[in-house]
Amino acid sequence: MKEFFYPASVAVIGVSARPSNLGRNIVANLVEFGFDGIVYAVGPNGGMIETRRIYRSVGDIPDHVDLAVILTPAQTVPAMLEECGKKGIRWAIIETAGFREYTAEGHRLEEEIARIAAQYGIRFIGPNCIGAINMENGFCVPFPRLKKFIKCGDVSMITQSGGVGMSVLNLMANEGLGLNKFVSVGNMLDTDAEDMLEYLIEDPGTRLIFIYLESIRDGRRLMEIARRSPKPVLIFKANIGRLGQKIAQSHTASLTSDDKVVEAAFEQGGIIRVHDATTLGNNMKILGLPPMQGKNLAIISRSGGHAVIAADACELSGFNLAHFPESFLREIEKHFRASVIRLTNPLDLGDLFDLNLYAQIIEQTLQLPDVDGVVFLHTSLSEVENLASRQLLEHIMEMVQRYGKPVAYYLSTAASEVAYLKQNYNFPVFTQVVETIRALEISKHYHDMTQQVHNRGAIPVFQVDRAKVRGLIEQAHSEGRDLLLSEALQALDAYGIPTVASRIAHTVDEAVQAAEQIGYPAAIKIISEQISHKSDVGGVQLNLRSAEGVKAAFEDMTDRIHKAYPGARIDGVLVQSMVTGGRELILGGKQDPQFGPVALVGLGGIFVEILEEVQMRVAPVTEQEALEMIDRLRGVQILKGARGHVPSDINALVQALLRLAQLLQDFPEIQEIDINPLRVFHEQEGCCALDARMVLGERKTTTR
Amino acid sequence: MKEFFYPASVAVIGVSARPSNLGRNIVANLVEFGFDGIVYAVGPNGGMIETRRIYRSVGDIPDHVDLAVILTPAQTVPAMLEECGKKGIRWAIIETAGFREYTAEGHRLEEEIARIAAQYGIRFIGPNCIGAINMENGFCVPFPRLKKFIKCGDVSMITQSGGVGMSVLNLMANEGLGLNKFVSVGNMLDTDAEDMLEYLIEDPGTRLIFIYLESIRDGRRLMEIARRSPKPVLIFKANIGRLGQKIAQSHTASLTSDDKVVEAAFEQGGIIRVHDATTLGNNMKILGLPPMQGKNLAIISRSGGHAVIAADACELSGFNLAHFPESFLREIEKHFRASVIRLTNPLDLGDLFDLNLYAQIIEQTLQLPDVDGVVFLHTSLSEVENLASRQLLEHIMEMVQRYGKPVAYYLSTAASEVAYLKQNYNFPVFTQVVETIRALEISKHYHDMTQQVHNRGAIPVFQVDRAKVRGLIEQAHSEGRDLLLSEALQALDAYGIPTVASRIAHTVDEAVQAAEQIGYPAAIKIISEQISHKSDVGGVQLNLRSAEGVKAAFEDMTDRIHKAYPGARIDGVLVQSMVTGGRELILGGKQDPQFGPVALVGLGGIFVEILEEVQMRVAPVTEQEALEMIDRLRGVQILKGARGHVPSDINALVQALLRLAQLLQDFPEIQEIDINPLRVFHEQEGCCALDARMVLGERKTTTR
Repeated sequence: MKEFFYPASVAVIGVSARPSNLGRNIVANLVEFGFDGIVYAVGPNGGMIETRRIYRSVGDIPDHVDLAVILTPAQTVPAMLEECGKKGIRWAIIETAGFREYTAEGHRLEEEIARIAAQYGIRFIGPNCIGAINMENGFCVPFPRLKKFIKCGDVSMITQSGGVGMSVLNLMANEGLGLNKFVSVGNMLDTDAEDMLEYLIEDPGTRLIFIYLESIRDGRRLMEIARRSPKPVLIFKANIGRLGQKIAQSHTASLTSDDKVVEAAFEQGGIIRVHDATTLGNNMKILGLPPMQGKNLAIISRSGGHAVIAADACELSGFNLAHFPESFLREIEKHFRASVIRLTNPLDLGDLFDLNLYAQIIEQTLQLPDVDGVVFLHTSLSEVENLASRQLLEHIMEMVQRYGKPVAYYLSTAASEVAYLKQNYNFPVFTQVVETIRALEISKHYHDMTQQVHNRGAIPVFQVDRAKVRGLIEQAHSEGRDLLLSEALQALDAYGIPTVASRIAHTVDEAVQAAEQIGYPAAIKIISEQISHKSDVGGVQLNLRSAEGVKAAFEDMTDRIHKAYPGARIDGVLVQSMVTGGRELILGGKQDPQFGPVALVGLGGIFVEILEEVQMRVAPVTEQEALEMIDRLRGVQILKGARGHVPSDINALVQALLRLAQLLQDFPEIQEIDINPLRVFHEQEGCCALDARMVLGERKTTTR
Repeated sequence: MKEFFYPASVAVIGVSARPSNLGRNIVANLVEFGFDGIVYAVGPNGGMIETRRIYRSVGDIPDHVDLAVILTPAQTVPAMLEECGKKGIRWAIIETAGFREYTAEGHRLEEEIARIAAQYGIRFIGPNCIGAINMENGFCVPFPRLKKFIKCGDVSMITQSGGVGMSVLNLMANEGLGLNKFVSVGNMLDTDAEDMLEYLIEDPGTRLIFIYLESIRDGRRLMEIARRSPKPVLIFKANIGRLGQKIAQSHTASLTSDDKVVEAAFEQGGIIRVHDATTLGNNMKILGLPPMQGKNLAIISRSGGHAVIAADACELSGFNLAHFPESFLREIEKHFRASVIRLTNPLDLGDLFDLNLYAQIIEQTLQLPDVDGVVFLHTSLSEVENLASRQLLEHIMEMVQRYGKPVAYYLSTAASEVAYLKQNYNFPVFTQVVETIRALEISKHYHDMTQQVHNRGAIPVFQVDRAKVRGLIEQAHSEGRDLLLSEALQALDAYGIPTVASRIAHTVDEAVQAAEQIGYPAAIKIISEQISHKSDVGGVQLNLRSAEGVKAAFEDMTDRIHKAYPGARIDGVLVQSMVTGGRELILGGKQDPQFGPVALVGLGGIFVEILEEVQMRVAPVTEQEALEMIDRLRGVQILKGARGHVPSDINALVQALLRLAQLLQDFPEIQEIDINPLRVFHEQEGCCALDARMVLGERKTTTR
């Protein structure tokens, strides 16, 4: 991918002498940004722009060309690309719009482009993008005419939307952040965001990577690349709802992903998710400081009110106020002239006006082993203090490095001074107290995620009966159906997930016989591929206490179903023993189109029904991760034995979850699994799947 | 209160010639801001500052003085105030700190100040504050030296913290917002935030009021004043958690309120709650536009990416995308030259570059009856567009007034241009897409709250047996105890809240007899003032199906309690019939120290136990409000009959809630009521209180 950013020569295709021509802008941008290579302008009408010749075709260019930027009408792009191929150009950026995102014809054109690229071995970015920028060599090919508005720095950006990308560049410029590389990936027909991320992680000029996406092409790869990144990766994933979908589709041909899966995968990949650009600048900067490694904050404030607001925010962010030892407070007290303030954390600087003393106090605070980070809330009382405040900031920057702990610096002053500091000091300056704490929360969150990713433990591999499941799936496939209830339970059993004792019965007599063997009370459930929500149609009868009960229930059930679904094929009933006690959970999973196998767990009853509370993880899942999933369930206190509840066998639940994840990974044909309920008994007493649904994917449809 | 802001003459007490003297700053600020009255400097050492005489005492001033600003050491303040009283000064601002917020001695000094003020009829602001500003007449008495950094406008501010107040003024100045009046109320020993709010609502120069508070003195009054306000009232209430409490206490002597009550009361008062200052500026501005009256948004964007982000935010904020009729789209289509964009809402302006056309499209959109508000997402591609963009903004401002609908205007451009627009156009300019939508959410929320406040309906008055409850309370008071379970149920009964059939029994035989009369199954519960959590000590036995059962349970219960609490006085047991069916809710209430009687409702079981989900309202509650409370309960679907549940008798629940609120209002002696559970049956079948706890307040303790 390096070749996209460091070409020695560039041909801009689609240039004309017309003043409104966008190709001209690209040439002008390369000049403006001081590109260190050779630029050729190409356009069918030839002519000149300023002193530069416009070649009628890339073929006319006398020398070798490394990279082509194409911005000609959509229908001409295949021909242009072919010319590039013939010329020996192996790298292209196609900025033209009007492809798959617009019409079926555009879709066809994309296929042609892909074919030509493959034929000539051309790698390309786009189409439907605004190109790339590399501040290191002045390579700058977006088609809007740009001034050199941003400096060279260490933040790089991948964006699926040119407009959003440009507005984030504006924001970075306003925040005084420097750009290293920028790339707009558009429809991602060839190279995609994952390729670019992989490159930027290796790129020596890049310290931090920001990505804006409206769709994810290979989510699993994205997650895995990010997981290996030693550099912070921030992603703003838009197009998360129903309303954004239509416009995203016509904007960058983007489909919506299941946002709960995205959320889980990002966390597993150690990706910092950004939900809007409001605090992006400060987050980019705070991630350049040493991380917040623990929960203990010291708040030092020139205003008591700001200290109160900060303490509230500290609590909401899950931080603690570090304990200040008495000896430390006595040391600090020496700085104060009058005594009108009680010393504590938050520390109100009160009547202390000497900014040199502030630096001393901050240093003494950073030295406390119990302090993981400092929030310094400064109010510059007038312009007279600007110089002293700048010196204080320099002091702080130096101390942050020396003590390896973050200081989040809030400043209330005139906008002009804040702007000056942002442009001239490579350090976050917050103008809102609450943002100050939130930024440290990001720092802590990133640190924690990184730790989690590194300490997730080994991926378990269980001894299972794969052949059994393979057989069940083949059978179902051959009959063009999903797994039956009885088969689904067998599959779980083959993977070592405990299931309730069950027998298949086809007649009343068989049902009664099965119940006698299993013991009462018993339950019977209909087995039929056409009926997936059994209880809605009377296909589940519980608490049968005698042969008569089973008989009556069997007859009633088959009767009702024959009436309700005259055409339904009934494959018998499943006779189960009634299992009571413990708690109901649901366990499940699915194949996500972007992320592959995903496992989920949730508490049953109203938690799932009303609150829709489940935790998901992309498989494979480690034991550590499974425990985290369970720990995050709202209502987990019940499982842990809060308020007089008996603790549940969380270990058995973890094992079932891990085995389910392995099943999903082993058989991508299983599109969806639903164990509802999984009954989890008291500690040491295990768990048991009472009902299960397994839906098969693709191959089923094709065999039908 | 007007006299605090429009004095004809001011004495600043505490001035010396020393350069670091803060009193000097006050005099200088009055000069800097062009105060239109006479200023006298007063300080014990006399002398001069510049050409101004320093009087040794207010008594030495030859003319009448309207208002004194006092900034002398705390222990001298009472004497200074007395001098003011003698001089005939009736209005004072005491800025000195070091009172109640600091020491017991400070508390005593405050009492002395209050006494002196009462004696001379002096009204005052403070102590421990930074004074007041009135931009209309240049009255400006904070002690930090200020430049005239903010213009005169229509926003007024009340703040409990000087530092936070000043930083919000900075923010307003940076946002180009004008200030009308500013007052820092500090310890609120005499005048408080409620007094100031009442005044500012009447003040002709004020359009919008922002309040920063760390404590609420008279919450009920605050709520009621705000409820009558035709002007938007925004309150940032800090000190909401455990961590902020200590520093708030030493900062402005503030105690923490129950934040759930604050939340409810603010909504009932139509108060817009602000949780940080991040978007304060834009919210102040958006509230100056016509309100968002419905849910239907039109999004018009120059960038497809911004449109996607806006559509996501629109969904999260509960807005809809307005339907664009076909005829409208055909009209719009005429503006576009090439067709590479599909027209829809959000509307991507794509290749349309003429800003005059943007104005036309916005106008055509505002004309659609189905559109309640417009989001316009603008990206200025280069400085060349600045002038046209400014004209467009003027157009938009005019159209907003003409069509009476809000347009939220986002602009991505250089910071300098944004700053120019903020200073020169009195219109919100957003630089973050998500904030744009959130501001419209605030507009809609304020509109809805105002409607709700106006349409809350009549306060119901039920025919109840007050004398009965009075008697029960007197009896309990005279015995120095809370109400017993049996009495609490009687009190509910007296207020028309259905209770379960119960009888008191003192012996085994009485218990059996009571059960025989009530019928089986029965429950028995211990009656003892010393045992408030009965079930924890075996004081509740359910499902007793026979005389033997009742007998065994009675003996077991009294036995266990005698062993566990040898000293406990047992007043008998309550024999109740077992009530089954329906759903368990909790109903309750308490006397809040700031807001008075508060009623609450919640779903029982895990909703209360694990999720702590309850809805509160300050009493009195109207039927409309009770329905809103219930509607907002998470899990309300269950009551309404979702997913196969039978609908519950919500009407009966509402009636019980309203009657409980009346009980709390009629008897402020009842500190806390807990009906847990209240069993609510199927529609039309009523509800029934099964258990209740009533805790009495103050008087109980004093009679002990």
